[in-house]
Amino acid sequence: MSQVIFKFEDGSEVKSFATEGENLLEVARKSNVAIDAPCSGNASCGKCKVRLVGGTLDSKKTRHITDEEYEQGWRLACVSTVDGDVEIMVPDIASAYKSRMKVADLSSKEEIKIFEKAKSDVEMAGIALSNSLDVVEVIMDPPTLDDTMPDNERLTRALRKYLNIKRVRIPYSVLHKLPDVLRENDFKVKCVIRTTPDDMFVYDILGMDVDVIIGGLVIDIGTTTVSALIINMENGEILAKGSAGNGQIRYGADVINRIIESEKPGGRKRLQDAVIKETINPMIQEMCKSCGIRPQWIYRMCIASNTTMNHLFAGINADPLRMEPYIPAFFKTNSLFASDVGVAINPDAHIILAPNIGSYVGGDITAGTLVSMIWNKPEFSLFIDLGTNGELVFGNSDFMMSCACSAGPAFEGGDISCGMRATDGAIEACTIDKETMEPTYSVIGEEGTKPIGLCGSGIIDVISELFACGIIGPKGKFVREGKRIRHDKYGTGSYVLAFEEEAGSVKDVEITEVDIDNFIRAKGAIFSAIRTMLASLDFDVSMIENVYVAGGIGSGINMRNAINIGMFPDIPVEMFHYIGNSSLCGAYAMLISTEAEKKTYELAQNMTYLELSTVPTYMDEFVACCFLPHTDSTLFPSVQPK
Amino acid sequence: MSQVIFKFEDGSEVKSFATEGENLLEVARKSNVAIDAPCSGNASCGKCKVRLVGGTLDSKKTRHITDEEYEQGWRLACVSTVDGDVEIMVPDIASAYKSRMKVADLSSKEEIKIFEKAKSDVEMAGIALSNSLDVVEVIMDPPTLDDTMPDNERLTRALRKYLNIKRVRIPYSVLHKLPDVLRENDFKVKCVIRTTPDDMFVYDILGMDVDVIIGGLVIDIGTTTVSALIINMENGEILAKGSAGNGQIRYGADVINRIIESEKPGGRKRLQDAVIKETINPMIQEMCKSCGIRPQWIYRMCIASNTTMNHLFAGINADPLRMEPYIPAFFKTNSLFASDVGVAINPDAHIILAPNIGSYVGGDITAGTLVSMIWNKPEFSLFIDLGTNGELVFGNSDFMMSCACSAGPAFEGGDISCGMRATDGAIEACTIDKETMEPTYSVIGEEGTKPIGLCGSGIIDVISELFACGIIGPKGKFVREGKRIRHDKYGTGSYVLAFEEEAGSVKDVEITEVDIDNFIRAKGAIFSAIRTMLASLDFDVSMIENVYVAGGIGSGINMRNAINIGMFPDIPVEMFHYIGNSSLCGAYAMLISTEAEKKTYELAQNMTYLELSTVPTYMDEFVACCFLPHTDSTLFPSVQPK
Repeated sequence: MSQVIFKFEDGSEVKSFATEGENLLEVARKSNVAIDAPCSGNASCGKCKVRLVGGTLDSKKTRHITDEEYEQGWRLACVSTVDGDVEIMVPDIASAYKSRMKVADLSSKEEIKIFEKAKSDVEMAGIALSNSLDVVEVIMDPPTLDDTMPDNERLTRALRKYLNIKRVRIPYSVLHKLPDVLRENDFKVKCVIRTTPDDMFVYDILGMDVDVIIGGLVIDIGTTTVSALIINMENGEILAKGSAGNGQIRYGADVINRIIESEKPGGRKRLQDAVIKETINPMIQEMCKSCGIRPQWIYRMCIASNTTMNHLFAGINADPLRMEPYIPAFFKTNSLFASDVGVAINPDAHIILAPNIGSYVGGDITAGTLVSMIWNKPEFSLFIDLGTNGELVFGNSDFMMSCACSAGPAFEGGDISCGMRATDGAIEACTIDKETMEPTYSVIGEEGTKPIGLCGSGIIDVISELFACGIIGPKGKFVREGKRIRHDKYGTGSYVLAFEEEAGSVKDVEITEVDIDNFIRAKGAIFSAIRTMLASLDFDVSMIENVYVAGGIGSGINMRNAINIGMFPDIPVEMFHYIGNSSLCGAYAMLISTEAEKKTYELAQNMTYLELSTVPTYMDEFVACCFLPHTDSTLFPSVQPK
Repeated sequence: MSQVIFKFEDGSEVKSFATEGENLLEVARKSNVAIDAPCSGNASCGKCKVRLVGGTLDSKKTRHITDEEYEQGWRLACVSTVDGDVEIMVPDIASAYKSRMKVADLSSKEEIKIFEKAKSDVEMAGIALSNSLDVVEVIMDPPTLDDTMPDNERLTRALRKYLNIKRVRIPYSVLHKLPDVLRENDFKVKCVIRTTPDDMFVYDILGMDVDVIIGGLVIDIGTTTVSALIINMENGEILAKGSAGNGQIRYGADVINRIIESEKPGGRKRLQDAVIKETINPMIQEMCKSCGIRPQWIYRMCIASNTTMNHLFAGINADPLRMEPYIPAFFKTNSLFASDVGVAINPDAHIILAPNIGSYVGGDITAGTLVSMIWNKPEFSLFIDLGTNGELVFGNSDFMMSCACSAGPAFEGGDISCGMRATDGAIEACTIDKETMEPTYSVIGEEGTKPIGLCGSGIIDVISELFACGIIGPKGKFVREGKRIRHDKYGTGSYVLAFEEEAGSVKDVEITEVDIDNFIRAKGAIFSAIRTMLASLDFDVSMIENVYVAGGIGSGINMRNAINIGMFPDIPVEMFHYIGNSSLCGAYAMLISTEAEKKTYELAQNMTYLELSTVPTYMDEFVACCFLPHTDSTLFPSVQPK
């Protein structure tokens, strides 16, 4: 056994052990060290670059490591094997996806305003904000020798009187504690119940003096980030809000690599554990602590996530999703409970899934569509969710069509050499001086935080500015020279936003032609999807009256720049609205309102799904979009150089 | 720590450790050594007699150990504490209750004849022998790019077509394996389903080539013995039959001591584990092995047991059962599943409980009543279940009344110094020569098996013969002298059936005045209950036309002798019928037939329950019965001395 020490830029370290010949990326995974590996260890993305600072490693050389870098100790973890004690430096950029959990401070109204808005939007549309959960006080006559009815029948009789419902169901979890709770409280108790026209289900029984809160859990399982709310089901109040990196990230950045990983022996369990045991359950614990609610008081949860995340969450074979004819095991299910998958809340809690409508249009989109409110307006609106997959919905109160395109992880900073999530150290906005070619940028974090990478909105700005300044041409290649522009020995150009001494990391923050190319393909996927979908309806982009943009790209997205690079259609910038995490918002609405839940199923049912790969012109359209802003510049009349 | 070695008569031994001062009975319990302790360690029953054969023990002297016995090393385990390394001999009689598991050889028709009879009796009464479980073959069109319905909807669509049922429920356990099973079998599968008029529940999905058997499990959880069947739900065929001692026996012989034990810290879990993990699950495993069925193919089970056993099985507080007003948590429940309590069969399997009708008249009696068929006859019949509690049902097709009396464990050999279960080595029948006073007995087991104790039917015979021969008087005291009759220093008489050299054990097999007294109280409880119940209806025993005797007392019970000692009413002996384990038989009928299940609920609903303790004359009646045969000998005109 050899000792492996992982060192981080913040001075912390993780010690682990490895057998001779063990793959370094695997060692990191089993040691819970998140090293970014979007390609899942195939040596193709070059993101798992680490630096050997002590001992030895047996590493293959790859095109991702220059000779100079190799000299400095840089290695790709995925092609390195342990052959003795070793010390490894993991740069922040390689661990930027690591599962940092954050519980929001709700004293700021800012944090909850989109949920308040969703609630009022939905209510304005005539949807009642009530659900089937309730807490009732039940006072029974204690048994006597003349009234020897057993406890469960006594409770049933009392509840029936309360609500005039014929069928009362008392599950084992309640029966199990029934005699104790009744006697400790002299037959005066509170019951948490769910009522439907046909029956009543008793979730819990508690003493009259327990100030129980009927808790609800809302989760958006993103491929990269998991976000959650704990709410009070009686009034919809948000009690806690949290987020964390999806623990599955170490098994691949995109859904395809995750599915491949899940099909290896033990993989389904590993991927399920990564998102439930390592990500969701610790978040629940922290969030409950922050608001003083007991996890077992969470009696219902709603999940919005893409189809693959749904399957991996449930530990169900997702392989058919990635192979023709791309069939999921389910779009929705009524039979999923917390105890089935081990979510650490009340074991009888029902898990509601925002319905999927296709293998690549999932519950995140149907939930998002609900709160985008485009289904409630006569004007034509476009809803765009920019995630690892880009999903689009177009329509109005009469019809809706959806499609999905594979944008890749670029919008969240993946596939970009210095890309990262919209978190501390990320350049989120940028302008470039046309003359000096010097950048001015803003970095997420406290005043003075130095940049370590670029998040999605920052990349849009940088590419838009490089193009507007004539530094790169329509194909994304460098056409000017300067201090910040350099070329490697293969001739690949790059623009340095922050040299090592300006940066908050041990590496320059730069954007390369490869990055720009990746991003152009991502934005091309979105725009060609918009064009193709609209064309299939005989619509033109000029007929769009509203564009709602959602997703993890960050509220800092500069819509004008997104138009400038040909990502969004060239319509007046005031028609664009950033609506934040619409998936979480939609799942919140579904959880607090039974009618909203039904409405979402109805929307999913009525949404036409367009499989882009079956449209013959899509590929041509895509290729035409892989320019700045587009091969047909008449589509972007307002885009002008500086 | 001291080493404790338990040695058995068969030469086997169990090594354990104990701390200084640890109670020996507790050490035995934690080491899984079953030492009989009906009084649960209160030094009152004297059954936990063991012999110190090496080392030392700190023991109190009690009335149960004579000076001579003390010299020989005999000690009561419950009042002994460990104070150094020690070797303990556990005689067979003290471990006679130990959990010996037995899987029956079904090649003998004898084993299944009572179930065949129950099936035909029930069917003759117009009850259909069908249930809601079924296996169906489902052939689906595999998905294509034009037919992209998800797997669960595809299956639902196909099943709906099959049975024209609107609601199909696919639980997580099936959804979880759905994509795999469908694809491995090219969308041609078998489903195990349950159909009701409202919906269909899918229990399982399997490949077309799997010869699945829809298994059912029937269990009678007796206080002393657990019996079980595995059946084929499609035709009611019995696939395996087994029995074992109830692992809870080491926590007390009767329900009251078990309840007390269960209320100690961790007690509910310990008692539940003892019956499920240590008794039922190993039986399921052995029985499944014997008939080649997989445990996960058992999709439904039915339990008949008394109210306390029901509660301890479910791990639910049973304490209110033993304290006024004696209220159970439930009489029945529809919400108990195998996964709730950890029975090792299909986790979604529904557990049906034969309904209790009172704290001391349980599902064993309602199930037994079903197959006694007394509810289907115009003549008045009495159904008696002789267990640790004696339960009675009297009535006909117009009415039924039930009551329970605490007979104690005497009928199963408890509370009797040489008492034991009806198993190998038990004297099950006996006659005594009036002149020589020499006994002639038959012993359970192979030809030539030597006696080690007496089972219930043997005790009835011995007492009846001792009385008929004038060896004991009406109060059960010895009135003759002889070689086999002796008195201890307190003057307590006993009759030796087998001296040590004749016996198969290290002790004489004898019956003492204390034993006889205990047994007289047990039989007195039964007869006074019969008289009291009949009197409450203005009936006399002469109006009884049939008596059905059930229970673990053994098929060898001599009805004439039972009348002679005043246990059963003095009516013609041909009116008595031993019907064996009617609880198991009734649970079998409930499991294979939905109508029989409903019928049992109906019987329970309509059965009047008489709480004997509320009848003012019951105690007088009981006292009057504590004679041989009765203080009022006119009630037993046919009983004559030899």
